[in-house]
Amino acid sequence: MKYETLAFDGEVLRLLDQRKLPGTIEFFTAKTYKDVEYAIAEMVVRGAPAIGAAAAFGVYLAAAEYADLAKGEFHAKLAAACQELAGARPTAVNLTWAIERMLSKVTAMEGEPVSSIVESLLEEAKTIVREDVEINKAIARHGNEIVAPGATILTHCNTGSLATAGGGTALGIIMAAHNSGKNIEVYVDETRPLLQGARLTAFELMQAGVPATLIVDSVAATLMREDKIDLVLVGADRIAANGDTANKIGTYMLSELAGRFGVPFYVVAPTSSIDLSVPDGSHIVIEERSAREVTHIGGLRIAPEGIKVYNPAFDITPHGNINGIVTEKGIIRPHYARNVSELLGAE
Amino acid sequence: MKYETLAFDGEVLRLLDQRKLPGTIEFFTAKTYKDVEYAIAEMVVRGAPAIGAAAAFGVYLAAAEYADLAKGEFHAKLAAACQELAGARPTAVNLTWAIERMLSKVTAMEGEPVSSIVESLLEEAKTIVREDVEINKAIARHGNEIVAPGATILTHCNTGSLATAGGGTALGIIMAAHNSGKNIEVYVDETRPLLQGARLTAFELMQAGVPATLIVDSVAATLMREDKIDLVLVGADRIAANGDTANKIGTYMLSELAGRFGVPFYVVAPTSSIDLSVPDGSHIVIEERSAREVTHIGGLRIAPEGIKVYNPAFDITPHGNINGIVTEKGIIRPHYARNVSELLGAE
Repeated sequence: MKYETLAFDGEVLRLLDQRKLPGTIEFFTAKTYKDVEYAIAEMVVRGAPAIGAAAAFGVYLAAAEYADLAKGEFHAKLAAACQELAGARPTAVNLTWAIERMLSKVTAMEGEPVSSIVESLLEEAKTIVREDVEINKAIARHGNEIVAPGATILTHCNTGSLATAGGGTALGIIMAAHNSGKNIEVYVDETRPLLQGARLTAFELMQAGVPATLIVDSVAATLMREDKIDLVLVGADRIAANGDTANKIGTYMLSELAGRFGVPFYVVAPTSSIDLSVPDGSHIVIEERSAREVTHIGGLRIAPEGIKVYNPAFDITPHGNINGIVTEKGIIRPHYARNVSELLGAE
Repeated sequence: MKYETLAFDGEVLRLLDQRKLPGTIEFFTAKTYKDVEYAIAEMVVRGAPAIGAAAAFGVYLAAAEYADLAKGEFHAKLAAACQELAGARPTAVNLTWAIERMLSKVTAMEGEPVSSIVESLLEEAKTIVREDVEINKAIARHGNEIVAPGATILTHCNTGSLATAGGGTALGIIMAAHNSGKNIEVYVDETRPLLQGARLTAFELMQAGVPATLIVDSVAATLMREDKIDLVLVGADRIAANGDTANKIGTYMLSELAGRFGVPFYVVAPTSSIDLSVPDGSHIVIEERSAREVTHIGGLRIAPEGIKVYNPAFDITPHGNINGIVTEKGIIRPHYARNVSELLGAE
């Protein structure tokens, strides 16, 4: 990408404001953890891995803010800040994953002075970013194996460099397939309500020169029925131990249609999106967002005032609808309950 | 409805400009058949039965325009105007149905003076409107029989008084069920790209006091999976002899999901939407509309400049996905190829 999704300059976290893309290239400067919390909640930054990376810097910013406090107070304030940050959005597990990883660093350094802890937290946040870049590369390598030359791929929402600290998850595979000369074509679901497909994925694909066609979400059914889609690639916000996957609203619909027409349906995510503490999808909290996301587009009202709205940001795709989960450690295939734990080296 | 969808005042056809609802109540005045053609093509007026009614007045306006010509020239010019009008939109059969009905009036009056023909055409257009009102009532009566008390109904696009000259087709049933005290609830698909659900159906339901919830189109899958939908009611733009139905893009997707979860799926339309000359859905021309409908909302660009767009306005729901077709003459059930012809009294 021409523009960095997130960059830390030593003092502040600079985020590409994704609410305004592709019309406006504007950056949001997060000076405090509260700014980061706002940026995540308001979707200045979005995409599970990018949320995780931003949150890590948020933890560092809180630690830096409290660096002059006495040790006990530092720990108490940092813990409270982390709890606040973790509440910014409920569904993507990468948010709590990154915060817990940062906090485990704090715990490991319990005996050391606050200034050393703060310094290490900055390093840890940078490590999370560096690792995400490598993870994205490994995902693209594994995923490219399932892309046939000439394939037409359908994708939903945005899972590219705008959704991660690196080259992307599902969209990273698409980029890798394109760059390896496979002559692929892509259909992009616009992804209502926030139009991440139309605004962000279309933007990334055009910048990369990948042949792409934008559709409204309900066109996918017709394309599948007409045998125009060879592969569906989507991201994930949280994957349960049995493979059930929470992802952007509309993903589940695609999985049903893909199953109906025998189109391979793959979820693509780093292993940090897998939450072994959640046995199945019914335990994943689905964020319900503001009615305004549906009733307004860019400030313009498109529905009558006072209309009731149901606006779940995610849905659950049952593991039975998923042909494979592409991670940086390889592709997990059914039986998921067994193979997910096995890949993660869990008991 | 508080505002009339279409009204003829003796000289001009006044159309409620549906492109601007619900934000702005504005009327479009069609003084010539070319104005009517424009209004249909640009969707000032939309909905298969309303298009038919508007076209009928368009034929009259052309006839009135040519009333002073010699008889031969009158007939030639009128035929050319009708051909132009018929080309305004390709999918809804009611457009050609209404024009053919008007032309058959002309043929029947061949020996009579032009002034009498013109006069009769105005009467015929008014009759089409009057009949549509009665047809809508009969549809609502038949359709109300399939609505259980307390039912939660999902509907797509707009099939209400804005889509017809009367009380509506699918939405007419919903209104009848509500008015008969059945305590129904309605989920309204916003219906991208032109948002007829969000703009028009939500508006009509709120005006009528029917409990309604607006959703983006891809939420329907989750609602059905969670057993929250008891019945799906949609309209039709053209129904083939075997029951295959062309309707607003997204209808087919709903039919697949309804089938997957055993939710009854009914098409609601006047018999004038049935086209016995079309054996099945594969022969129905699907209108592909401008990319701008997808890339812009209300003048606001929401996708990168130059992105390729596929924007079919309709899709085909195969008859096997349809539990019944509610018409003014009763409910047609499978086997459609036999029962459609039988209801229409065809050989």
